[in-house]
Amino acid sequence: MAAAIRYSRRHLGLTATNPSVATLIVRDDGDGPVIVGRGVTAVGGRPHAETQAIAEAGEKAREATAYVTLEPCAHHGRTPPCANALVAAGVTRVVAAATDPDDRVSGKGYAILRDGGVEVIEGVLADKAADIMAGYLIRSFKKRPEVTLKLALSADGMIGRRGEGQVTITGPVSRAQVHLMRAESDAILVGIGTALADDPMLTCRLPGLEGRSPIRIVLDSDLRLPLSSALVLSASAVPVWIACGADADPRKRQAMIDAGCRILATESINGRIALPELLEDLAAQGIATVMVEGGANVAEYFLSESLVDRIALFEGSDAIGEEQGVAVSGLRSHMAGFSPSREARFGADRFTELTRKS
Amino acid sequence: MAAAIRYSRRHLGLTATNPSVATLIVRDDGDGPVIVGRGVTAVGGRPHAETQAIAEAGEKAREATAYVTLEPCAHHGRTPPCANALVAAGVTRVVAAATDPDDRVSGKGYAILRDGGVEVIEGVLADKAADIMAGYLIRSFKKRPEVTLKLALSADGMIGRRGEGQVTITGPVSRAQVHLMRAESDAILVGIGTALADDPMLTCRLPGLEGRSPIRIVLDSDLRLPLSSALVLSASAVPVWIACGADADPRKRQAMIDAGCRILATESINGRIALPELLEDLAAQGIATVMVEGGANVAEYFLSESLVDRIALFEGSDAIGEEQGVAVSGLRSHMAGFSPSREARFGADRFTELTRKS
Repeated sequence: MAAAIRYSRRHLGLTATNPSVATLIVRDDGDGPVIVGRGVTAVGGRPHAETQAIAEAGEKAREATAYVTLEPCAHHGRTPPCANALVAAGVTRVVAAATDPDDRVSGKGYAILRDGGVEVIEGVLADKAADIMAGYLIRSFKKRPEVTLKLALSADGMIGRRGEGQVTITGPVSRAQVHLMRAESDAILVGIGTALADDPMLTCRLPGLEGRSPIRIVLDSDLRLPLSSALVLSASAVPVWIACGADADPRKRQAMIDAGCRILATESINGRIALPELLEDLAAQGIATVMVEGGANVAEYFLSESLVDRIALFEGSDAIGEEQGVAVSGLRSHMAGFSPSREARFGADRFTELTRKS
Repeated sequence: MAAAIRYSRRHLGLTATNPSVATLIVRDDGDGPVIVGRGVTAVGGRPHAETQAIAEAGEKAREATAYVTLEPCAHHGRTPPCANALVAAGVTRVVAAATDPDDRVSGKGYAILRDGGVEVIEGVLADKAADIMAGYLIRSFKKRPEVTLKLALSADGMIGRRGEGQVTITGPVSRAQVHLMRAESDAILVGIGTALADDPMLTCRLPGLEGRSPIRIVLDSDLRLPLSSALVLSASAVPVWIACGADADPRKRQAMIDAGCRILATESINGRIALPELLEDLAAQGIATVMVEGGANVAEYFLSESLVDRIALFEGSDAIGEEQGVAVSGLRSHMAGFSPSREARFGADRFTELTRKS
């Protein structure tokens, strides 16, 4: 199952509204277990992992065991549900990790397998599998995308230097890691402050993954993002969605649309964009994962609205100093609601992934 | 209510995943009823109609009646639900048409109003209101978009002439009507046969509505659509999504992406694209209305899969002749499952809208 879960990461961020799921079909003819069929949800979301693994295994699927990272689907379209396809392929045992929360599947996939005489073992490494498809699960349960807040902090807890744009807090290994996270996300979000100060591209620039840049979203109530910004200029290559208030200047709005950006309609609360409503609309349009990249105000806003599921914390080794530094207000107290789930070192930087305590 | 329903049409196709809903606030101070506040779901889907009508009415909302085409929303984000906003505004009576199927709203909106001392009259002209937001309702219930099949038939029931591309079957008034239907749709869909034979643009070209062209979807299992087609050449201006098989040539796939098209992953059944799965994925990505525009094979395919909710039938006055004509196979027997809901004359053409019998 651990191998299946690792394999399921392969198409993260590439499977549209379907989760990135893996299936391994394994048989043991006396000489130890051999993988005879592999599948991961195809780019774009179809075909499903099971279909591909069964096709690869062919006759070898008979009396084999299938490891699936998510309960196989149970609802009929034009193609048979994956649960039925596993039965038809002659698999005798299914070891499954996470249960599908979709009400057309939940429990029904396992029931089809059992009715077909297949032994089912549920819940193996379920947390690990669920962690990888958190976007799909949170979108199903909460009708909003999974939100990951990326924070790069100096050794003294600052996220930037007062009055300056992009400052280098973390090293090249951390930055490559951030680009990988972008490639695995459906959308990346920044506030207008960061967009103006840094004029960022927010694309994935890892060699070979340039085509995997996510949709770039800017919170920009009053449409202050210039038409000459790196974001707007690249809008025809990688989508830019701008969340602005209903009363934003209609001429600016039209100019943004003409430049290839998309305008997201929002509700405003005291001049700020209402985040739950925005996230609900993004989920309804198929966005399952959003990475929030800055700046301090936007980070604080998402945290104070309890809309952060995961914090990706990169800590550099240099200090900025309290007088010159910019901090996220109340960060330490917000972070008390999270517990560390993964730690790593990226060059000289310390990385901690924190998950919201449930 | 009839006026509110007419008003709700205004932003059809423009409100993303929210339905186009209208609110009229009416009061009668002895001199007959006067509209003191109007709202229709804003372009993009927010703010909602109620919020805008309440803002316009201001103090005049006190003791007034609100006509709403859909049950007011009941779930909290950052802004108060519309049901609570109507109570707070002092409205004393709400006359509502359709009930919201969203399980966070259904019945709960009315309950909030009644708990707030507001008289509620439900279900007034509910069918007429539901007809206009059929896309929203079908997407909620069936997890697929509403499908409207547009058919232009000659006097003898042919949809085209053998071996020819675009033939003129109906007059300019009908064609303008088709462009208006495009403007009100989220997406328009054709088969590769039609795309090759006609090289169509499928945009809305009515003066003033050029910006309202829907997403253009082509069913193209083997990626035969040429890069030089009108569709691909205009892909950066108006989105083109191509539904192809998982085994389509990866180089062609990449060439399409480079030309600005989006590739939709699909399941194949005997070399044809599985429609229920495709429609499910479109709905999950926020598409609530799809207009199917041709040709004969695609029309027959959607009809035989029972995936057509509505037929927009344009009948011209000239005959083509059985030998030269192309017909939709089994059309008359399929049409027995539909009943006429609206009739009109567009110039010399006869128009009938047919709705699937439930």
